Amino acid sequence: MTNDVKRVVLAYSGGLDTSVILKWLQQTYGCEVVTFTADLGQGEELEPARAKARLMGIKEEHIFIDDLREEFVKDYVYPMMRANALYEGLYLLGTSIARPLIAKRQIEIAKQVGADAVSHGATGKGNDQVRFELGYYALSPDIKVIAPWREWDLTSRTALIEFAEKHQIPVPKDKRGESPFSTDANLLHTSSEGKVLEDPWEEVPDYVYSRTVNPEDAPDQPEIITIDFERGDAVAINGEGLSPATLLAKLNDLGRTHGIGRLDLVENRFVGMKSRGMYETPGGTILHLAHRGIEQITLDRGAAHLKDELAPRYAELIYNGFWFSPEREMLQAAIDHSQEKVTGTVRLKLYKGGVHVIGRKSPYTLYSEKVVTFEDDAGAYDQRDAAGFIKLNALRLRLLGRRDGR
Amino acid sequence: MTNDVKRVVLAYSGGLDTSVILKWLQQTYGCEVVTFTADLGQGEELEPARAKARLMGIKEEHIFIDDLREEFVKDYVYPMMRANALYEGLYLLGTSIARPLIAKRQIEIAKQVGADAVSHGATGKGNDQVRFELGYYALSPDIKVIAPWREWDLTSRTALIEFAEKHQIPVPKDKRGESPFSTDANLLHTSSEGKVLEDPWEEVPDYVYSRTVNPEDAPDQPEIITIDFERGDAVAINGEGLSPATLLAKLNDLGRTHGIGRLDLVENRFVGMKSRGMYETPGGTILHLAHRGIEQITLDRGAAHLKDELAPRYAELIYNGFWFSPEREMLQAAIDHSQEKVTGTVRLKLYKGGVHVIGRKSPYTLYSEKVVTFEDDAGAYDQRDAAGFIKLNALRLRLLGRRDGR
Amino acid sequence: MTNDVKRVVLAYSGGLDTSVILKWLQQTYGCEVVTFTADLGQGEELEPARAKARLMGIKEEHIFIDDLREEFVKDYVYPMMRANALYEGLYLLGTSIARPLIAKRQIEIAKQVGADAVSHGATGKGNDQVRFELGYYALSPDIKVIAPWREWDLTSRTALIEFAEKHQIPVPKDKRGESPFSTDANLLHTSSEGKVLEDPWEEVPDYVYSRTVNPEDAPDQPEIITIDFERGDAVAINGEGLSPATLLAKLNDLGRTHGIGRLDLVENRFVGMKSRGMYETPGGTILHLAHRGIEQITLDRGAAHLKDELAPRYAELIYNGFWFSPEREMLQAAIDHSQEKVTGTVRLKLYKGGVHVIGRKSPYTLYSEKVVTFEDDAGAYDQRDAAGFIKLNALRLRLLGRRDGR
Amino acid sequence: MTNDVKRVVLAYSGGLDTSVILKWLQQTYGCEVVTFTADLGQGEELEPARAKARLMGIKEEHIFIDDLREEFVKDYVYPMMRANALYEGLYLLGTSIARPLIAKRQIEIAKQVGADAVSHGATGKGNDQVRFELGYYALSPDIKVIAPWREWDLTSRTALIEFAEKHQIPVPKDKRGESPFSTDANLLHTSSEGKVLEDPWEEVPDYVYSRTVNPEDAPDQPEIITIDFERGDAVAINGEGLSPATLLAKLNDLGRTHGIGRLDLVENRFVGMKSRGMYETPGGTILHLAHRGIEQITLDRGAAHLKDELAPRYAELIYNGFWFSPEREMLQAAIDHSQEKVTGTVRLKLYKGGVHVIGRKSPYTLYSEKVVTFEDDAGAYDQRDAAGFIKLNALRLRLLGRRDGR
Repeated sequence: MTNDVKRVVLAYSGGLDTSVILKWLQQTYGCEVVTFTADLGQGEELEPARAKARLMGIKEEHIFIDDLREEFVKDYVYPMMRANALYEGLYLLGTSIARPLIAKRQIEIAKQVGADAVSHGATGKGNDQVRFELGYYALSPDIKVIAPWREWDLTSRTALIEFAEKHQIPVPKDKRGESPFSTDANLLHTSSEGKVLEDPWEEVPDYVYSRTVNPEDAPDQPEIITIDFERGDAVAINGEGLSPATLLAKLNDLGRTHGIGRLDLVENRFVGMKSRGMYETPGGTILHLAHRGIEQITLDRGAAHLKDELAPRYAELIYNGFWFSPEREMLQAAIDHSQEKVTGTVRLKLYKGGVHVIGRKSPYTLYSEKVVTFEDDAGAYDQRDAAGFIKLNALRLRLLGRRDGR
Repeated sequence: MTNDVKRVVLAYSGGLDTSVILKWLQQTYGCEVVTFTADLGQGEELEPARAKARLMGIKEEHIFIDDLREEFVKDYVYPMMRANALYEGLYLLGTSIARPLIAKRQIEIAKQVGADAVSHGATGKGNDQVRFELGYYALSPDIKVIAPWREWDLTSRTALIEFAEKHQIPVPKDKRGESPFSTDANLLHTSSEGKVLEDPWEEVPDYVYSRTVNPEDAPDQPEIITIDFERGDAVAINGEGLSPATLLAKLNDLGRTHGIGRLDLVENRFVGMKSRGMYETPGGTILHLAHRGIEQITLDRGAAHLKDELAPRYAELIYNGFWFSPEREMLQAAIDHSQEKVTGTVRLKLYKGGVHVIGRKSPYTLYSEKVVTFEDDAGAYDQRDAAGFIKLNALRLRLLGRRDGR
Repeated sequence: MTNDVKRVVLAYSGGLDTSVILKWLQQTYGCEVVTFTADLGQGEELEPARAKARLMGIKEEHIFIDDLREEFVKDYVYPMMRANALYEGLYLLGTSIARPLIAKRQIEIAKQVGADAVSHGATGKGNDQVRFELGYYALSPDIKVIAPWREWDLTSRTALIEFAEKHQIPVPKDKRGESPFSTDANLLHTSSEGKVLEDPWEEVPDYVYSRTVNPEDAPDQPEIITIDFERGDAVAINGEGLSPATLLAKLNDLGRTHGIGRLDLVENRFVGMKSRGMYETPGGTILHLAHRGIEQITLDRGAAHLKDELAPRYAELIYNGFWFSPEREMLQAAIDHSQEKVTGTVRLKLYKGGVHVIGRKSPYTLYSEKVVTFEDDAGAYDQRDAAGFIKLNALRLRLLGRRDGR
Repeated sequence: MTNDVKRVVLAYSGGLDTSVILKWLQQTYGCEVVTFTADLGQGEELEPARAKARLMGIKEEHIFIDDLREEFVKDYVYPMMRANALYEGLYLLGTSIARPLIAKRQIEIAKQVGADAVSHGATGKGNDQVRFELGYYALSPDIKVIAPWREWDLTSRTALIEFAEKHQIPVPKDKRGESPFSTDANLLHTSSEGKVLEDPWEEVPDYVYSRTVNPEDAPDQPEIITIDFERGDAVAINGEGLSPATLLAKLNDLGRTHGIGRLDLVENRFVGMKSRGMYETPGGTILHLAHRGIEQITLDRGAAHLKDELAPRYAELIYNGFWFSPEREMLQAAIDHSQEKVTGTVRLKLYKGGVHVIGRKSPYTLYSEKVVTFEDDAGAYDQRDAAGFIKLNALRLRLLGRRDGR
């Protein structure tokens, strides 16, 4: 690949770092920059990004600002929730799941405006560079990818700020000093890592949290809610039908109030190192547990156990950036096949950081009081069948016992 | 198999049901009964069982009362905790893990006293019959197994009580009416199911819980503790070295106080039906999360992810009663191999039903601040390596993209 | 369930055993019998079954003889072939895959004629009883199932023949003595087991084989053929388009000639014992290897490896009789998703029992000579990328090496 | 890492390529070169390598020539055979399994002679660079690795030969022109790839094969042999006890004679591309099938099926170069645990490229004629148990059927 780039689509937040990247791309590659700013529910105004892009000479038709919140929840968060995916047993993948959508839209724009390159602001140590770039390459195999953090010599914050000042890029006051940590946010979660979090023995300081109240400050009264599911997806809260993004936003509010979804994690990055992160996933945590709740009565054991065995792999694929891969799609096909009757209502109690499923019902329930009851079951189940069931399950163990005589 | 039984070892709790079974065995099989009562930390006096057995004519040397608490935690609970086993994503397997130990000891006694049969009080609808009997058969392939609940005609509580009264078996007042639910308890957990729990939409009534305070009644102040691990096993709390059973008992106290470890679950039984259970696993819940915490810094990614993929299968095997099976032992060998350096200290916050890992340290930590830092890493990691890493991971996706052109 | 049966659909081959069952059902249950005889390509005339059924008093409209060969190959064999399923690494599941189709058709007929029961001629020791009955129950949960071999007292061949003679059921001469083995056949395979095969140290006598020539007697000249695939399914041999059943029949002819597809196996039955079987799967063996051949160039690595990991489970499900289960369907959904571009042509050499893939091509090939070549690749692959790829894959191992210093 | 290298251990075959590398290392890095030549059974004289090394100025004490054949088979090939490992369903991993041993010995020598670097002759497109270097880094995390093919500008064979001639490195006549393919050989296999093999539609020319006769030229009489196993490892052929390497060599002779173990494969490389290779694994093919044969009667179903599910992952790890990884070791621990009673004798027929297991026996057989027999089994198995077994296995499917009514 050559360095001959004519037009590049940059994932542009409007912040200091990507503004520096914008300028650096113009300078280094002498190319036209197209900015793409996505609203994924990160909770920031996007119009300032437009103004900044204009100031840096970006043509009006080359400034893209898209509200992707509904697509994000419907086509990315929800399919992942159907899988009950948890990375390393605990992490709800809030950052990982947003990257493929950004990559996809960036490539669409590149095709639309005839760009020959794309660029992003992720560093060379993290997972996000992988997630962005695997997405780019899967969707546009011959695109040129520019990852400034791996290329330039602005390797310290001081150098970055000097570059900014030299090029009239406004530097917000709070960016002058070292930030005590770095964050990423979208409708599903906020993550923080670095600096003050780098010693995994030290508790995460309370000021790092921004999406949830401290459980200790949450209401002393629990709150009971219901969530309705249809075919594996949440469709209503307390009986009120809501679009995916609206529903998740509402769960975020509930989660914030009750201090739900904080996670302090040391995780294994795809690039080979361990890192310590702090995650807040208020609505997602509720959704995850509620989905398990509705599956408990609507999903057959065979399907449920197969899902449980596939889920770690599925989560790993998303974490590592392989959303647009045949194997993720194969797993999704299996998972989605299982969700046809995952319809019904879950009742949950939210209290001081905890989410407790306290009831579930469904027109498609497989739970049969008649079969399970300790009382007379009117022949629904013949206890004598259990004898044969056990005898044949034991047969191989008995043959083994006879041989090995332990 | 014939019905010609000479001597049978009964798993005997001293309660009404197993007392009726004792008598029924004597009557039906005309055989000698040997009673075995195990202390697994269920929190009941065992000496009354001795007295009752005597009353029913059991010879002194045929009354076995064993304290198995340390063996239970050391050889059953701890190996399972090393696996991070959760059945159906949530259940810590408190009942399942006790059954193989009871079966094993029962068979040892049978060999010691020359018994030709064993018997238990589990019903024909549940999992416990399977767990007991697979254990029996694996350890003594030609033993005769008597499961009275699958054989007799005492199919209602009224019939059972009539039988008891007819045979001078004392019936406690609270057993006269229908119990509103049935329970099982040991050092790891208490479970309840049946009757008032049979509608999975109805919240579990508070009086069903016995091992934990309601989180809403737990202290308003969080409590911070540390747990030390050695080779995957907990060995100390707040720096105080404790034996396995003592340590778990202490964690149970802490968990009880802070309302930790309640679970309302609809689960899939091995015999094919769904059932709704309530579980309280106060200490085990803390232990489970603490173990994940120490693994986060001491376990390599390859080992950790393989463990995560194997854990659902491992949990299923224990739930289904296959503790004494080659495949459980194979998985255990793999898991145990991974635990050699899982040594260090985890700091946890307990608060209102929640357990939060807030710090972990280890002499064997694989977390490297030097590598992960956002600051200058002095060459510990070359960000340019990431470019090649991504390019080769992307290669197959690019070839695919060129072919399929999506 | 009561024994009150009005009308039963019997899987009826017309042979001695199922004729005895027919009569026994009439006698024991006093019920009307509906016979169902399927042509699955077992290579026997079916009209004699009609005549026999008539003789035993079955009404004309209650005699069902169906040619299911195309459905069998298209909807059962082909989906299984897409999975590359091998039970215990070697067995192509020829018997297992036929049972669900028979069960399905039997239930359809039961619904059509208003029968309240179904019956089959499988014994109580084998897998087939499980496969039939799981199919019945999955498709008609409240059907009454009658398995005469588990119920009656005709436990010796002598008793069976006496019963037959007593009831004017013709007994073929070769059935008078003990058969030296028992067989099952359909378009996919012939299996034999029992009697002379029961010592797994003794070689299978040549007279047991019926579908293939002995490789030593096969032609001294190899034969080269091509098979065309579309979306994972074979559609043509040597360029000639053929329907699924016709194609498999043709491959069977080729396999027979060249002595292909013999397998001497000791396998683990679902009911818990080991058994020794002899299988002949001439066409299926060719198909299996050809399918792997076309996948080699059309399937992405991620998809291929996921398939390989899922295949043993998939095979186990089919072997155990869980064709009509959510988990088999989930796996099928994943597998089928992968087959969209599995289109192209495989060239094979057949010789003396061996099948050798010697060439494969596809309009959708992912094999890129340009990328893989040792020659100048014109920038298709940058060898320096490998350095970064290796460095990041090695990072965790290096951190581990520094800690553990082995 | 700097380029300041003092002493480098080179994996040196004595051939043209590694001789050029030797000289290039001396020139480019100005460092001392230590040569390491391993006898892994590739069938070449190693003393010429010593002479060449001397000629190029290597000190006597810096020339290492080691016979690693026994270690190779005992500690690498045999553990892998216990796993029944096949990469992509077909490939016996002959090249992959040799690399970690070479890497291990190279690092040992580096420690012994105080070298600060290691080097190898694998190219930047293949898997071997990964396997070597992951081994180096796992065993010596801070070693400097030099991969000349990724660094130098000798990118054509002409350039390489010019370099050789310029530096008085003898160029064998047959290396002057382009070799029609490249090969790798050791006691387990010979592989060939490149050039004439690059079109996967074209049959591999017969002259590419070197380790086996063409099956068509193999003897017209089959040969019957026996292999004895102890704890999963082959220990004798036809009753004659042999060391691991001697045994494999003897099987290679048998395989060669009968044309066994040829494989034409298009495989997925770890670096992301598909390649076409030709493999000859004569003895390994026999061993693989024989091991399956002995497992059939000595391995419990639970263990066997778990092994089958883990084997693709295990094979992938070895193929990708992760021999020295915790997850490979975990899998090995599980596999080895299963092999304790995999002891006995397998009888095989070798004929015209085919290997057929025709008998197996063991003092630890789990096959029970008494249980499986169609004849009277004297109560070893109660067929009525099957009814309960099926009913409970069917229960969830029936509940599902009632709900979904298909």
